[in-house]
Amino acid sequence: MSASARTVLKPAEHYNVCAKDCPARLVFERLADKWTLLIIRVLRQGPGRFNQLRREIEGISQKALSQTLRKLERDGLVSRTAFPTVPVTVEYALTALGDTLSNRITPLLSWAEDQIQHVLEAQRQYDSRQ
Amino acid sequence: MSASARTVLKPAEHYNVCAKDCPARLVFERLADKWTLLIIRVLRQGPGRFNQLRREIEGISQKALSQTLRKLERDGLVSRTAFPTVPVTVEYALTALGDTLSNRITPLLSWAEDQIQHVLEAQRQYDSRQ
Repeated sequence: MSASARTVLKPAEHYNVCAKDCPARLVFERLADKWTLLIIRVLRQGPGRFNQLRREIEGISQKALSQTLRKLERDGLVSRTAFPTVPVTVEYALTALGDTLSNRITPLLSWAEDQIQHVLEAQRQYDSRQ
Repeated sequence: MSASARTVLKPAEHYNVCAKDCPARLVFERLADKWTLLIIRVLRQGPGRFNQLRREIEGISQKALSQTLRKLERDGLVSRTAFPTVPVTVEYALTALGDTLSNRITPLLSWAEDQIQHVLEAQRQYDSRQ
């Protein structure tokens, strides 16, 4: 490991997502994005092609999908494999690291689906009090 | 339960965060926000006052904090209690529903802190290939 790498790689307990300039905050800010979370959720079901992802994630634009995939690839969370077909077929898949992240994301997304009734009810009560 | 409420409250399996017009998608989009996630993380440690939250969550503006707290209150995730002191003391706390959400958020935030080394290493490798 080089000296410069060693200065960056501190034990996990030194990182804090609440601290503005912490590298963990930067990674966390990337994750706290609806397209990032939805792409990872869909890829958890298996590898997919660009247009497949675009169909499954309703409302995502071509630009948002390609930008988010590129960031996820740079972060080591998603792999991009080109197959020498005509035209070239490109497949996206979770890496082993992305897979560990997807384990943390799935419960959050299920929460939104499971608890939506309680949130809608709370909103109704709040609005009727205003 | 009124007929109109009954039309909204469908079984959880009918909700899908990938569907553009699903109510669960709207709730999920609210959650997929860095300030929302960080506020819930900090409140998980116990109730807090406005300025306390502002200090702990570095980089959040007064406006972002008050707007996000109001949305979280409307969603039934955070309670707001005013104590009749001079000046009035206002305390924010997770509700029981907010507490179930915080259980799902904590593992995601810890992931960013625990895996940051791997993400930084992946970024270095990606950038050196470009």
